[in-house]
Amino acid sequence: MHRNTQQLEEKTIASTPIFSGRVISLQVDEVLLPNGKTASREIVKHPGAVAIMALHEDKLLVVAQYRKALEKVQVEIPAGKLEKGEDLRAAAARELEEETGYVAQSLTHVCSFYTSPGFADEILHLYFTDEIVPGTRNLDEDEFVEAEFITIEQARAYIADGLISDAKTMLTVFAWQTYRLTGSFQ
Amino acid sequence: MHRNTQQLEEKTIASTPIFSGRVISLQVDEVLLPNGKTASREIVKHPGAVAIMALHEDKLLVVAQYRKALEKVQVEIPAGKLEKGEDLRAAAARELEEETGYVAQSLTHVCSFYTSPGFADEILHLYFTDEIVPGTRNLDEDEFVEAEFITIEQARAYIADGLISDAKTMLTVFAWQTYRLTGSFQ
Repeated sequence: MHRNTQQLEEKTIASTPIFSGRVISLQVDEVLLPNGKTASREIVKHPGAVAIMALHEDKLLVVAQYRKALEKVQVEIPAGKLEKGEDLRAAAARELEEETGYVAQSLTHVCSFYTSPGFADEILHLYFTDEIVPGTRNLDEDEFVEAEFITIEQARAYIADGLISDAKTMLTVFAWQTYRLTGSFQ
Repeated sequence: MHRNTQQLEEKTIASTPIFSGRVISLQVDEVLLPNGKTASREIVKHPGAVAIMALHEDKLLVVAQYRKALEKVQVEIPAGKLEKGEDLRAAAARELEEETGYVAQSLTHVCSFYTSPGFADEILHLYFTDEIVPGTRNLDEDEFVEAEFITIEQARAYIADGLISDAKTMLTVFAWQTYRLTGSFQ
């Protein structure tokens, strides 16, 4: 495969800011394509986020919360936006305790991924822990979540019911399956 | 876990359209929180997408393309936006052939997931095939992609190098690991 960036690159001709909000901003870029034509690209900017795969006695710690973008309650692994300049591992530890009340005594990086590379630069950093102890729950003022430990069979049932249906939690369930089979994420 | 939607629900008080583009639209909703306070929610609307995990002789079919939102070339499984009213399996078959030139002789649904439930309604439907035959490649006018078959070791090397770093492809590599170990996705 030729991954010659120059052969595939889209050069920015113009960038128009459309919106700057509390969480995301939006811009429309006009780009020059490799064939010399132009196209527009709608791009959402996001500060990035962390998520935590926390296992305890072969159960996964999840939270239920209302997702306005989907207009329904979803069960997901704990996650949250990065604060400016924040260390990734510190952010993962903070979000875990804020959302669930559990403190991670270790946190290892599993992987990082862009959630929607077609239109957004959001990156999510996934951390793993199997060492958690009770701490202090402290939700954001506009956050309403409920925490629970589920078995992998419950996770599959939640997927079948549509209660679990976000990329990071679905990926985590697949990673968990691998971890149960091999003791690692490979 | 109490998944009483009413206890977690955020009721829409007002919805302000901000932008309507070629791919996405953006609105800001003012919501009433369960505690009686209000908050704003920035919401991106997206038509949804399909992606294809195509295996051939224990290799995964991937495409390299420039992602403007990330300002870099990425290696991903084939994927594309849904066209209005399109059947999901037909869309997966269409995108696979358009982007790679391969025709799937079977397609089974693996899972569907929301990529960024915190701010977007984009849902991605993942299909699996291990029966592909050469067809006709037919890229969109503004699409420049290169197709390749990679082993799972190459996939891991691409992840380590940051060439593979999107949610759907990362999830697919974990699902592939499970599939290699168990012969299924569980």
